[in-house]
Amino acid sequence: MGNDRSPIHPEWVTGFVDGEGCFFVGLSKNVKLKLGIEVRPSFSVSQGSASKQVMRELAACFNHGSEQLRVDRYTLKYESRSAEHLRNVICPHFDRYPLRSQKVADFLTLKRVLDMMSRGEHRTREGLKDVITMAYKMNLDPNSKSRRQHPIEYWLSMLDGDAP
Amino acid sequence: MGNDRSPIHPEWVTGFVDGEGCFFVGLSKNVKLKLGIEVRPSFSVSQGSASKQVMRELAACFNHGSEQLRVDRYTLKYESRSAEHLRNVICPHFDRYPLRSQKVADFLTLKRVLDMMSRGEHRTREGLKDVITMAYKMNLDPNSKSRRQHPIEYWLSMLDGDAP
Repeated sequence: MGNDRSPIHPEWVTGFVDGEGCFFVGLSKNVKLKLGIEVRPSFSVSQGSASKQVMRELAACFNHGSEQLRVDRYTLKYESRSAEHLRNVICPHFDRYPLRSQKVADFLTLKRVLDMMSRGEHRTREGLKDVITMAYKMNLDPNSKSRRQHPIEYWLSMLDGDAP
Repeated sequence: MGNDRSPIHPEWVTGFVDGEGCFFVGLSKNVKLKLGIEVRPSFSVSQGSASKQVMRELAACFNHGSEQLRVDRYTLKYESRSAEHLRNVICPHFDRYPLRSQKVADFLTLKRVLDMMSRGEHRTREGLKDVITMAYKMNLDPNSKSRRQHPIEYWLSMLDGDAP
């Protein structure tokens, strides 16, 4: 645990993320947008706050400094929320060093959503419906706060509500 | 996720264990033993029960078949409890592909306990006290059931209680 640590291996990164990582597509209301719903793709890894060194190393693997780490009570979280960074840094890593756990499904969904976003499809009613449906198939953790707060119908009815 | 999976990389294994693994030294009462306390070193990795394939691959990395996996409600657990297997298979893996998270401290404690056991030191009152003290410095998770059930004094007083 001193300064004699070996460089981090990309396969280690994938293994750690298979354990502790989260690929997510969040949704939030945003009145500035035409359809009123913002799509927020993200990748994050959380650890106990004692694991500062390893989290700094992890961030560095994704070209981020420790300013990208956030402390929330006893948890240290690395998070990437930039679609550009997700597309250019995060996805290529996991394309090259594939996930082995069930999380690979969430990663593939995140990639599909990023692709749709790059084509602007999330700004169309049909495209956004697809994104919402995909998002709700990810991370089937019933404890997910954002999913518990709003069932999928909450978002879909927003889209239907102001249909022409 | 088909049959085209690449072979598991040992660095992936260490990364996954840095995330999800547990090095532990359990204690239990055993009236058949002279000092009445059994030392039970173990290594385990737990996952949601959907992750059967990756857990089978993980077990195989440690020369175990899927009979070594146990299902407990929604959790699938790989566990090694044999001191010989821990010494000859688990420890050499993590010596060669070192852990990067705080878990390295638990791994080093497990190794020290295994060394003491191989010299029979856990069968002496002083040696066993050392093992108990080390065990209680591991996995400082206040939710650990076994630690909550019995504070360290429970075990130490057993040793003092029948002192000559």
